[in-house]
This record gives sequence, C-alpha cells and structure tokens, in this order.
Amino acid sequence: MRDVTKDNITEVFMDYFGEDTDPRLREIMQSLATHLHSFARDVNLTHAEWVKGIEFLEAAGRISDETRHEFILLSDVLGLSSLVDMLHSNPQGTSSSVLGPFHIAGSPPLAFGGDMKRDYEGQVLLACGRVSDVDGTPVAGAELDIWQTAPNGLYSSQDSEQDTFSFHGLQTTGPDGRYGFTTVRPVSYTVPTDGPVGQILDATGRHPWRPSHLHYIVKAPGFRPLVTEIFPDDDPYLDQDTVFGVRGDLVMKYVECPAADFPDGYAISGNVDAPFLMADFDLKLVRHQD
Amino acid sequence: MRDVTKDNITEVFMDYFGEDTDPRLREIMQSLATHLHSFARDVNLTHAEWVKGIEFLEAAGRISDETRHEFILLSDVLGLSSLVDMLHSNPQGTSSSVLGPFHIAGSPPLAFGGDMKRDYEGQVLLACGRVSDVDGTPVAGAELDIWQTAPNGLYSSQDSEQDTFSFHGLQTTGPDGRYGFTTVRPVSYTVPTDGPVGQILDATGRHPWRPSHLHYIVKAPGFRPLVTEIFPDDDPYLDQDTVFGVRGDLVMKYVECPAADFPDGYAISGNVDAPFLMADFDLKLVRHQD
Repeated sequence: MRDVTKDNITEVFMDYFGEDTDPRLREIMQSLATHLHSFARDVNLTHAEWVKGIEFLEAAGRISDETRHEFILLSDVLGLSSLVDMLHSNPQGTSSSVLGPFHIAGSPPLAFGGDMKRDYEGQVLLACGRVSDVDGTPVAGAELDIWQTAPNGLYSSQDSEQDTFSFHGLQTTGPDGRYGFTTVRPVSYTVPTDGPVGQILDATGRHPWRPSHLHYIVKAPGFRPLVTEIFPDDDPYLDQDTVFGVRGDLVMKYVECPAADFPDGYAISGNVDAPFLMADFDLKLVRHQD
Repeated sequence: MRDVTKDNITEVFMDYFGEDTDPRLREIMQSLATHLHSFARDVNLTHAEWVKGIEFLEAAGRISDETRHEFILLSDVLGLSSLVDMLHSNPQGTSSSVLGPFHIAGSPPLAFGGDMKRDYEGQVLLACGRVSDVDGTPVAGAELDIWQTAPNGLYSSQDSEQDTFSFHGLQTTGPDGRYGFTTVRPVSYTVPTDGPVGQILDATGRHPWRPSHLHYIVKAPGFRPLVTEIFPDDDPYLDQDTVFGVRGDLVMKYVECPAADFPDGYAISGNVDAPFLMADFDLKLVRHQD
C-alpha cells in the first residue's frame, strides 16, 4: 500500500499474510504486531527511544551464548515468563514457575538418597517428597531434573570453579513415588546484573534478588511436564522476587532436625554431626487430558 | 509478592518500580509490559510458543553484528519502524520513512553534480531537487546523507565486491538549497532472507521485496532531521513494500530525458550517450519548534 499512515498501518499489516499461513502463527503474529503498535501509539514512542530499544536488543544478543540467556532473563524480569507459566497451570496440580536461564540438559543420575552437594560445605538440607497425580496416587518412574546454585549464589554455568553439572541431578521415583536427596541449603542470589537487563533493573530502581529455591522439572509418561521451584517461607525476598516466580503453593517450611534424626538410606558425604534441615514437599502432576 | 497470579501480575509489575525512576522510562516500561502481558493473555501463549520466541530472539542476536541489524529488520517487517516514523511526522514537511538496517556513518563528501555510481554500469539517473523549509524558503548548508544499493540489489555492507562507501555520499546544499548528483537507477531488492526474519516472512506467506528507492537523511541547523526515502511511481512493489515504507508524498516520477539534454555542472564518469532519467524531488524540512 502506498498510503500507509499511522492510523491504518496495523490493518495494512494484517493484509500482508499469505492465505495458507498456519492459523495459529497468523493469530500470534497479528496479536503481537497489534500490541506492539498500540504500545508505540500509547507512549508516542520517539525515534530516539526506538533506537535505544534496538540497541538494547542487540546488546542482549551480544551477551547471550549457549549458557547465558539474556532474552529469557528479560522475559523473566518483565513478568512475561511467569504469566505464560500461569496461563497454563491447572489449579489441581502443583503450580509451575519460571524455568530461568540456567537450566542445562544432560544432568547426571542422582539415586534416591544421593548427595547433590558433594564436597561443598554448608547447612545440610534433606529434600524429599512424593510425586503423585492430582488424586494423590503415587507416580512411579517420574523423572525429576533438579538444580540449584552453589553456596556462592552461582549456577555451574556461571562459575568456572564448578564442574558443568555441579548441583544438578536427575532422579527417578520408585513405586512409592518418593524422591529424596541431600544438598546444601540454597541461598538467595541476584540474577546477572552485568548485562542490559541489569541496566534496566538499575534504571527502574529494582533490586536483582531472587528468594532462595530449588528448581525441579518433573516428567512422567501420561502427565504434563511440570517446571517449578520451591521456596522456604523465611526468605527475605519471598515477597519481591525480581522474576515474579513465587506462588502460594510453592512456599514450604524448613523443619530443623537434630543430627540424630538423620534417616537411613541417605548417603551424604561425611557424617551429619550438626542439625540439618528437611524440606518435605509433594509434587502433584496433572494428566495430559486434564 | 508471594501470591502472584495470572490476573494480578501486571499490577504487581507496576509496583516494582523505584520511586525515583525517570517518569518517561517508567511510562515506557509499564506500557510495554502491559501490552506484552495482554498479548500473552489474548493468544493464550503456550510455553512451547514462548520458547520459540526466545529462540527467535537469540537467533536474531547471533546473526547481528556491526553491519547486520536483524532487530531493525524485525521492527521494519512488523511495521513498528514505520509507525514510529509516522507518529512524529509533521504533515507540513516531507514524510519520513524507515532508516533501514544498512545506513553506515562516515560517508565521503559528494560535491554538487558529483557522481555516486563511479565505475558501475546501469541506466544513468540524475537526482536533484531543493531543500527548503515548509514555506519554500531554501535551506542552505543542509547536509544530505545519501545511500542506495548497487545494481545487484545489495548495499555495500552486504557485498564483499563493493568498497565500504560504494553508493554512499554526503552532500551539502549551497545558498539556493539545491542538491544534485548522478547515480544508476536503483533497483527493487529483497531484504535479507537468510536470517530468522526471513523465516518469519516465509512462514507468513510474505515476499521479501522492497520497491526501489534512494535513501536520504537531511540535517540542517534549526531543523528536525529528516530520515526518508523516495520511490519511483512505476515500481511493481510500490503497493506492497515489505517494510511499509511508502508514503504518498514520497512517490516521484522518473522523467526520461534525451542524452543531449544532460545538464552542465554534472561530472559523471564517462559520456552520457544514452537517454537518462531525472528525479527532481524537493525536500521540505520542519523547524525544531514546529
């Protein structure tokens, strides 16, 4: 069209689609363009501001690589990742939460009772629970992909001191649906602040902290995959997670246990000679058809 | 907030801003997040679709460098660049049009009557006109930054056969406000299709063609910079520019002139021994205060 105007450009865009475009792709692209156009009109975006936006995206691209995912972080701090999670949550199952930019594939097996902390020092946390369907029936053979930061607040991919799969493990539930492993108590940490997303947080007066958490992805045949995190109720950042990941049902309580109560069947490295924490958290999976 | 839901997350996002955030930045970020959230809700965006979006942005980042600007191209084919241009156009002046991803700074001087085509073959085009204010008073000392593709449809930055500043020039108007130079007739060309934006065009049944054009950036003290393009009225893609750059007042007519009419004061390389085209196009600048 040779008479494109600020008033008709959204409509003109709609007309550009080929007739055999996949209907879902068409729906997504048309909605995206409509909202981007509305954004530009609502704030009367200037060319200089548009240039800043382009420079931001290019900077996010430059800092990204196989282990650094600045666009995921951007989506996270804008609340978009959490919103997408919640749009498809089934209230009968455990809530999902953000995947975050630090998940890596191929974690090593972690047998029931195994120790994920290996040689790291810190307060011992025994994390356990049961994977079930929404009615409470145990799910055997569910695969838990577990990861967390080291005590320094860094994931292995951020930290040259750690092995690739440090604080990562893959555990499969037995007939009773139970999982269990030892680790060190996760710490609150900041999302990466050395890139363009960090600059946005700084410029908008936001802190970069996340409450401490354990990440789980739970997969079992016949069930929807669950990407989630669990948070202790005493974390100071619980009410201001910079990536909006906290859901009411993902908050748990650490139970302080005397050293003598450490259960059999757990093979941590070294003796438990101090009180330990226990996080007993059940995970409810939703069947594919629900 | 520990009870973030899909219904309150936009509101929660609003509350995260520091009190001393620049009001304009706050306005832009709040509108952007609101529209992105509405987009996700409107289409009920799935996690798998979100992943595709993230992968798209990462791919755009990987293919971008100092001369390849995939995010600008994305903004262009979504109509966002054109909309931003038009939001701030003053109807009394010449319309602006997309900058495009191929502008480079530092073009060499091109004296009045100079030849931009140098050794390239093709139909000779004499482009000329007058830079004036909106009342028609000539603007002396206006700087025109001019660029176009070579006859192969590639900008110098896309083409290892060309010098860095091939088909680029910087001309300053004299007391009469006139500009004038020779070149070869620009050709219709496709935007780069070898990146993720090309995949979107393909998947949505859109062609990648732009109608042929000359790019101008016109700057003069006291006036708003004008970023624009001019298009011949006989181009087959005039009504379906893939980046929505055509405006009614930017369409001009090539006048076919006999070789004998070639004017003095133009120093093209080689004799004009064939009819040539003339594009006489005036550019009207808007003062800063208007």
